[in-house]
Amino acid sequence: MSYPELNVPIRILLGPGPSMVHPRVLRSMATPLIGHLDPAFFQLMGEVQGLLRYTFKTTNLFTMALAGTGSAGMEASLANFVEPGDPVLICVNGYFSERMYEMAKRYGADVKRLEKPWGEIFSPDEVEKAVKEHRPKLVAIVHAETSTGALQPLEGLADVVHQHDALLLVDAVTSLGGTRLLVDEWDLDIVYSATQKALNAPPGLAPITLSERAVEVLKARKTPVTTWYLDLQLIGQYWGIERAYHHTAPISMIYALREALRLVEEEGLERRWRRHERAAQTLWDGLEALGLELYIPPEYRLPTLTTVKVPPDVNERMVRRHLLEDYNVEIAGGLGALKGRVWRIGLMGFSARKENVLMLLAALEDILKRK
Amino acid sequence: MSYPELNVPIRILLGPGPSMVHPRVLRSMATPLIGHLDPAFFQLMGEVQGLLRYTFKTTNLFTMALAGTGSAGMEASLANFVEPGDPVLICVNGYFSERMYEMAKRYGADVKRLEKPWGEIFSPDEVEKAVKEHRPKLVAIVHAETSTGALQPLEGLADVVHQHDALLLVDAVTSLGGTRLLVDEWDLDIVYSATQKALNAPPGLAPITLSERAVEVLKARKTPVTTWYLDLQLIGQYWGIERAYHHTAPISMIYALREALRLVEEEGLERRWRRHERAAQTLWDGLEALGLELYIPPEYRLPTLTTVKVPPDVNERMVRRHLLEDYNVEIAGGLGALKGRVWRIGLMGFSARKENVLMLLAALEDILKRK
Repeated sequence: MSYPELNVPIRILLGPGPSMVHPRVLRSMATPLIGHLDPAFFQLMGEVQGLLRYTFKTTNLFTMALAGTGSAGMEASLANFVEPGDPVLICVNGYFSERMYEMAKRYGADVKRLEKPWGEIFSPDEVEKAVKEHRPKLVAIVHAETSTGALQPLEGLADVVHQHDALLLVDAVTSLGGTRLLVDEWDLDIVYSATQKALNAPPGLAPITLSERAVEVLKARKTPVTTWYLDLQLIGQYWGIERAYHHTAPISMIYALREALRLVEEEGLERRWRRHERAAQTLWDGLEALGLELYIPPEYRLPTLTTVKVPPDVNERMVRRHLLEDYNVEIAGGLGALKGRVWRIGLMGFSARKENVLMLLAALEDILKRK
Repeated sequence: MSYPELNVPIRILLGPGPSMVHPRVLRSMATPLIGHLDPAFFQLMGEVQGLLRYTFKTTNLFTMALAGTGSAGMEASLANFVEPGDPVLICVNGYFSERMYEMAKRYGADVKRLEKPWGEIFSPDEVEKAVKEHRPKLVAIVHAETSTGALQPLEGLADVVHQHDALLLVDAVTSLGGTRLLVDEWDLDIVYSATQKALNAPPGLAPITLSERAVEVLKARKTPVTTWYLDLQLIGQYWGIERAYHHTAPISMIYALREALRLVEEEGLERRWRRHERAAQTLWDGLEALGLELYIPPEYRLPTLTTVKVPPDVNERMVRRHLLEDYNVEIAGGLGALKGRVWRIGLMGFSARKENVLMLLAALEDILKRK
């Protein structure tokens, strides 16, 4: 048994995440560790919270990063706000809303589905109708569906949900830092994300923010949260003024997230969103010039993740394999209902640069011509 | 709002973890990312599994690293093997066995406690008596109690547990890679650990290994595991031959763990255990020479984590603050029942070096004399 030195291929990551990580973020992880209860670490945590508030566009006190990937953020959001038997409404139109449904079921919620075909979006009226019918405690929706490339408009949704005394839970995994997300202005209650998409830190943390309304609901729980690891009240005591030990924070990942968020702040959110839009528009134009068809109509097409229909005569896996093996470019295939039918191309944060788009288009053209 | 460049104090970490991370491990994290479904990443995962089997002393096929800290390993171990109403026996003699108890309760187990005062250990006879009385499906015990510094002997325990058709779950958070742990020879069924202790990777992953007996029990579950994120059957499909997407693996942490485990293999487990013993003996001798009293008797004293009684006339917090502020040395205070009564000194992996011990002893002597 003998394992060689770490020696990984250098890839251009244009899939649904992880995206490419900025060299400054990579370098930050080579910093020697300090303890998770060191006053110097508490200061870093406070800084990460401030930077997250900037990025989420919120003043929510409860804003932090959970020690797990985006899926841990999803699970924490459902597990902490659902008690057995609670009515919950999940807006299902893709792979990740299906996952929300699965999780809510496991925690014993009385889960109703508001369904649309994959790739479509919901109007406030449709949500209101379902809310009136099911009277849920919680309505969950995905802002940027990584499986379909659809961008769900969120403006006006909270009014509908709050009028019926429910909370609005939003999956912002593929939107935070990459496309307009205004937590306070849109009055969202529970919003989680992930670090490896438009924030350009490595996977491993789940940023999350809770409105005061959500914190009140959390405090009023009658039963303990089944998951101890993702119990937001306990985690909140570590990130809050108590600084009470819960688990050992992933120090190096917090270093990385802090540096990634500094890059977001330096660029400025508005400029960053525009950069994503420009990169995506270049990609969309280029793909159409290659004769390819986009899966999502332009009105609600997500800039961070584009789905392209696989032409009928093309072997989609072979194209991806060529891209990876001959060009070191990673894109992804479809998930679930779209498996084999689309490619998924991510332009997130540091990956969302014109030069990457041009390289991908040229490589795709080569491969599609060759066959 | 403006956040300066990352600039953390350089600490000597001699607390209960995180321990100091070897420069080779730090450097590995500065490696550019590849995707979590890249064939090159699957190869790395396989290598990490091989290295973990070496370190756990096991041939268990189900050997992997969960995407959370040690507490996530604990939660996965309980959540996956406990169904509501299942009888479970927890051997409680410290902070982390109390945490196991808390988690098992949350997952709806019928939990019995076999109790001993903090810092004591259990004999196979005592466990057998409790097993005969309660007929548990699962017996959980902590190998190396980070809160007390006691090392629980495990030889012979599995026979007692298996004779009564139960599984033996072992918390090896502070033992793996630092003191003798023989998963196969001792016939342990479920063993989890953490990366930030004697393995010297940053916190953020939980190595875990399951015996075939445990895998059979897992497969025979009648109800879905409540936690989706820590569902071992789903995670096993990602780490297994299926390589089925579950969540986005924390790529940079896997790089770090791989490098940390390479260091374990290069040193050799036996030599590594002896190095920990020698460093600990030097510490113990030095502390006693300073007139301090150790909390745990030598017969079952843990080399990786030493508890020292705080003399009655000494302000324990002040001593720790001096150590941190004036010498950049981190040690910890007591947890739970031992709060204020002991200091906890960790000598784990890369931290377990004679030079660190001498520095700590000299600094402690200075501080204790000064007051």
